Amino acid sequence: MRSLVIGIAGGTASGKTSLTKALIKKFEGNAAVVYLDNYYKAHTGLTYEQRAALNYDAPDAFDIDLMIEQLGILASGRPIDCPVYDYTVHNRSDEVIHIEPKPVIFVEGILLFAFQELCDMFDIKLYVDTDADERILRRVKRDMAERGRTIESIEKQYLETVKPMHDLYVEPSKRKADIIVPEGARNLVALEMIVNRIHHYLMEA
Amino acid sequence: MRSLVIGIAGGTASGKTSLTKALIKKFEGNAAVVYLDNYYKAHTGLTYEQRAALNYDAPDAFDIDLMIEQLGILASGRPIDCPVYDYTVHNRSDEVIHIEPKPVIFVEGILLFAFQELCDMFDIKLYVDTDADERILRRVKRDMAERGRTIESIEKQYLETVKPMHDLYVEPSKRKADIIVPEGARNLVALEMIVNRIHHYLMEA
Repeated sequence: MRSLVIGIAGGTASGKTSLTKALIKKFEGNAAVVYLDNYYKAHTGLTYEQRAALNYDAPDAFDIDLMIEQLGILASGRPIDCPVYDYTVHNRSDEVIHIEPKPVIFVEGILLFAFQELCDMFDIKLYVDTDADERILRRVKRDMAERGRTIESIEKQYLETVKPMHDLYVEPSKRKADIIVPEGARNLVALEMIVNRIHHYLMEA
Repeated sequence: MRSLVIGIAGGTASGKTSLTKALIKKFEGNAAVVYLDNYYKAHTGLTYEQRAALNYDAPDAFDIDLMIEQLGILASGRPIDCPVYDYTVHNRSDEVIHIEPKPVIFVEGILLFAFQELCDMFDIKLYVDTDADERILRRVKRDMAERGRTIESIEKQYLETVKPMHDLYVEPSKRKADIIVPEGARNLVALEMIVNRIHHYLMEA
């Protein structure tokens, strides 16, 4: 039996990772998770400076064919070795993550619904919707605390690529969603509804 | 045990009535429905012309205290006699609708989430979100076919009250929603999720 495949998209710092984590916790043992960010293209042949200058917020930054292939394999009940992206060198790592098939597969990523072929693989498409001002506040806090970045560097990246790519690709992709979840994992009513839906699937499976 | 109370809001011709009907059909015998439109204020003392000239698309057109009182009674397990509004005379009718309490109560209305006290009574707040252009197309078709109205009269009413009140009260009330459902009852993935949530409630009840 094919897995239930649930896509979770939304803008940067929208709360989609928290929602994904809350769902994984609820279905431990029954759920696998695949992150779009692990499928950034490998950049062999480019220098570090060239790789650092690439636009990582646009759809063509991703090796989406590989992701579609692997997600298809995983959803049909076979394991995959998912690539790993190493942000410190802006390139694909030599490591892989071995992922075993599970009845429920969560797929998370900002740009998921910008790819029609990916959309076609999801049984349920959830878009976590949080206002841009709240999202950038969270991102500033997170990038300063966890990555030791300055507000100037965060602002530059946000205004130069994150925001324009959000407006161009992420926001319009909301139209592909089956359900729009305001505020992600803090939204307990929505969380319970999604949990009940998955429970129902697992009981029938 | 208190009923599960589900509010279903959204703009004119968004598809919320179709969603409500689809849900009632799934839970026949277990569900009651309450319509905000039945709680338009009584207008004793006004002439027909004065009543016809009122703004029926703003929150203060409704006797919301009565609705809150009756919804509280129904949700706690006692029947109500819901008022009926007679559009042909622009006034409350002498009739009432007797509504028996049920484990699940659907409440439907464009402006539901514009009232904080009503929001506080809902266990689940669903907002059916459909683009304004698609909504007005549906409304034009419906009003011409079912009510024999001219396109000019529909346009006048829409631009003079329906649209300004939507922008002022309905669209902002979307923020109160727990779940935003694009396209209403045509959205089968969302419908299944809501149905599973209610089934789960009924199994636990």
